[in-house]
Amino acid sequence: MSEPLRLQGISASAGYAEGPLFDLDRIAIAYACKENADDEKAALETAIAIATGRLAALIKVADGDAADILEFQIAMLGDDALSGPAFAAIASGHPADAAWRQALDAEIAGYETSDQDYFRARAADIRDIRDQVLRALAEDGEVQAPAGAILYGEDIAPTRFLETDWSGGGGIALKAGSTASHVAMLARSRGVPMVVGLRVVGPGNSPANLAGIALLDAEHGGIVLSPSKAEIDAFRRSSSSFAARRDRAGIFLTRPAVTRTGVAVRVQVNIADPSDVDGIDIATCDGVGLMRTEFLFGKTLPDEETQYRAYRKVLEWAGEKPVTIRTVDAGGDKPVPGFTVAEGNPFLGLRGIRLSLARPEVFRVQIRALLRAAIHGSLKVMFPMIAIVEEYRQAAAMFAEEQVALAARGVPQKMPPLGIMVEVPSVAIVPEAFAEAAFFSIGSNDLTQYVMAAARDNTAVAHLNSVRHPAVLRLVAAVTAFGMREAIPVSLCGDAGGDPAAIPSLLEAGLRDLSVAPAQLAMAKAAIADVSV
Amino acid sequence: MSEPLRLQGISASAGYAEGPLFDLDRIAIAYACKENADDEKAALETAIAIATGRLAALIKVADGDAADILEFQIAMLGDDALSGPAFAAIASGHPADAAWRQALDAEIAGYETSDQDYFRARAADIRDIRDQVLRALAEDGEVQAPAGAILYGEDIAPTRFLETDWSGGGGIALKAGSTASHVAMLARSRGVPMVVGLRVVGPGNSPANLAGIALLDAEHGGIVLSPSKAEIDAFRRSSSSFAARRDRAGIFLTRPAVTRTGVAVRVQVNIADPSDVDGIDIATCDGVGLMRTEFLFGKTLPDEETQYRAYRKVLEWAGEKPVTIRTVDAGGDKPVPGFTVAEGNPFLGLRGIRLSLARPEVFRVQIRALLRAAIHGSLKVMFPMIAIVEEYRQAAAMFAEEQVALAARGVPQKMPPLGIMVEVPSVAIVPEAFAEAAFFSIGSNDLTQYVMAAARDNTAVAHLNSVRHPAVLRLVAAVTAFGMREAIPVSLCGDAGGDPAAIPSLLEAGLRDLSVAPAQLAMAKAAIADVSV
Repeated sequence: MSEPLRLQGISASAGYAEGPLFDLDRIAIAYACKENADDEKAALETAIAIATGRLAALIKVADGDAADILEFQIAMLGDDALSGPAFAAIASGHPADAAWRQALDAEIAGYETSDQDYFRARAADIRDIRDQVLRALAEDGEVQAPAGAILYGEDIAPTRFLETDWSGGGGIALKAGSTASHVAMLARSRGVPMVVGLRVVGPGNSPANLAGIALLDAEHGGIVLSPSKAEIDAFRRSSSSFAARRDRAGIFLTRPAVTRTGVAVRVQVNIADPSDVDGIDIATCDGVGLMRTEFLFGKTLPDEETQYRAYRKVLEWAGEKPVTIRTVDAGGDKPVPGFTVAEGNPFLGLRGIRLSLARPEVFRVQIRALLRAAIHGSLKVMFPMIAIVEEYRQAAAMFAEEQVALAARGVPQKMPPLGIMVEVPSVAIVPEAFAEAAFFSIGSNDLTQYVMAAARDNTAVAHLNSVRHPAVLRLVAAVTAFGMREAIPVSLCGDAGGDPAAIPSLLEAGLRDLSVAPAQLAMAKAAIADVSV
Repeated sequence: MSEPLRLQGISASAGYAEGPLFDLDRIAIAYACKENADDEKAALETAIAIATGRLAALIKVADGDAADILEFQIAMLGDDALSGPAFAAIASGHPADAAWRQALDAEIAGYETSDQDYFRARAADIRDIRDQVLRALAEDGEVQAPAGAILYGEDIAPTRFLETDWSGGGGIALKAGSTASHVAMLARSRGVPMVVGLRVVGPGNSPANLAGIALLDAEHGGIVLSPSKAEIDAFRRSSSSFAARRDRAGIFLTRPAVTRTGVAVRVQVNIADPSDVDGIDIATCDGVGLMRTEFLFGKTLPDEETQYRAYRKVLEWAGEKPVTIRTVDAGGDKPVPGFTVAEGNPFLGLRGIRLSLARPEVFRVQIRALLRAAIHGSLKVMFPMIAIVEEYRQAAAMFAEEQVALAARGVPQKMPPLGIMVEVPSVAIVPEAFAEAAFFSIGSNDLTQYVMAAARDNTAVAHLNSVRHPAVLRLVAAVTAFGMREAIPVSLCGDAGGDPAAIPSLLEAGLRDLSVAPAQLAMAKAAIADVSV
């Protein structure tokens, strides 16, 4: 029997899985060459059509993020720019599978060497498209992972995730990967345990032998291969405890959140797309604490009407409950073609409100849409990446100007309360300089990465990037205390708000208003009920 | 007469210049094609030799940084990898000038699209090499700038800077450029006023007509073309005042620094190369507050003996005065081939102590060299980019281990006091967690960029990157007060320490120990004498 081998990484979706490893990188596809170039061309056309059909079939059972990814892949498959080089290679005598693989590998390499995390993350999508078509060319033959297996490899394709039957358990353990990838988002929303950035702990090499059982602890971000009896026992205790906590959490979903000592805590949700609210019962939350608007800027700069309809939909869904919409936070790890600029350190660059103020012609479109939508509910608007109060004043002045202009044209509108994100350390260190803002919303992800000087998407410095570092908690407490003193509402809308491990520290720091991912709502309320403050 | 046109940028070297504009981008070179490919080849060989000879002649009158740049350029000119494609193009029938230009432009494009600021900054050096050879090919013909002119354009070549006669005044005004470029370093050390990143303020386009006088205010980072009479008068008053301050500063150089009210302030120097001390009289400063060691890691990873000799030289020069050596701060904007890694946000990545701890086999070589050098003077060692106290403990434990190992081998050594840089906000926010460090040295450049979330080399967010923001000063004051209370020495070694505009705020924050660039020593002491604390 082998020695136990431990690999440590970063949790991308909390949970536990015990089962055999399934090697994602062991994909063997047999393609039978055709008689001539015309037949090769026909074979590739058929394979692309089959792959497209399969993706379209998956869309029917997918929703939200998953459907977006599939639509992106179908669009790519239909793009002549992608298939053109393959057909050209076939015309000059290459077999269809080699031609397609070579053309797609070149495309993938381009994405992988991008200095933008967004495009690097998209490489997995293109790799998926490549393998979909190769599989169709070989008339299938890919081995399905056994039920309950832990899928292990460099990275995983979104379609592989969607085609896998997760009802019998299982999980994902990746050597590369990113907590910001499409699959990571899907895994969190489906509750599939997932760890990324795995490295061997201590002496030893990457596992050569993947046989036997493995223990995936995606609560703490580790995996053990060839575990000892004692390790299996300890793992099962942790896993049972996690399952019990998750089950117990379900009963908290429909109740208002209160601590063990009866202190009420507001729990709102973070959303990224108007359709996100379709699956949420408004009765289970206290409103929308963060509506991101970057999604609207995905392909083109959106017009006023498109934005107005998106904001109005969410406001009408929320009824009397507040909806806090954040003005576009492009830049950083969210590039928008035609809007953001390439930079050496995008997290420290022209992003959020900085970019909006630098591009007023784009910002004013969003401002008008927000002013018009405000009449349909309880809207609040906040500005991301505020570093100095002059930025807030400039943005507020533009709201006032656009309101006057709309009123002059007889367009119904309303000025919403204007608040700021507290994510640049300067604001948290000197909150009194920003007392004119209507409310504060602490963005714990960015605040943490700046306070610790550790990028939140860089696994090499992940050990430093902790919201529970005393420096981050001290700033959270200082901002919260300042808000109490000055009667300025303070909430928190980063990932920490929905993390049961961080919630006690946040409540101890004085916070009483959290905004979390919809999937985290029940667990967050359960964690709050466990805290004695 | 034209309307005044104002452009605003960032000061790369303080000072004032009034004079005609000289258009750097108006380089017209006429090359006469040769009879055949052999003659073309000979012409290019001759031109490269002429350019190399001119560079070598410049080296004789250059020193320090300037000589390093010229050596780099000569090495590039002698590199077949650079000239190979040009000779290949000549062989296939292209004229020498077109062949050379095309080959070098391809090389330049590669540097310009790098995501590393260091390599982008080197593009200017390659462009200089290109133009040097093109000029030699055309048997010269380039117009020299008139004495006292303000050189204006996209960017400027280092050789252009070195060939210009600055004795009659003049300055540099660039639309692109960087405060971290070779020319910017040269301008600061020679006292040539220089502004980079110029953009038109308010309505109006880039100047089409460069005729007439211009006013370059490189103290505040602006230039005015076609100034009004009133603007000229105001400019001359500011310029006189600056010159008077500079002259007056000279008399402060040899005196100990004291404030107006008689409070003593220690002023040390920052150096980057052992040879930097050759031009400094040790009597004019209180020691070396920061010796950078990245320069040793320029081309290859340096061996223990090379490092030991470098450290020993500076320690012997300083005598009894302290020399604070910073362990290698690679990464961020200082990539080292074979050591640092490419990252999406290098300022928030694996840099400084993080990289040293991740590469102990490299770090231990430096540790041994420092322990051995410590017997030659008053050495202090500090770690860059400390974010959590565990990093300090790990590094200190490695020093202890290496000391034991050296002692066991009978090698003379001594344990220096081990301190930390305060540049990651987490340290400044919770200084009590780092009380075991022997001393604190505030790195104001990095601290500022993290607190403001604004990269210090990004002109688009330069308006946010100010050490005088209340949040930065509040942290400086808190760290200084903590050090006083706990008897932990606190100094500051960022650019702010040598900036007369920032010095009053720093002394008011409680600092009594600054470390500045050697060229700033006199002005810093003069500014200190003006402060009443």
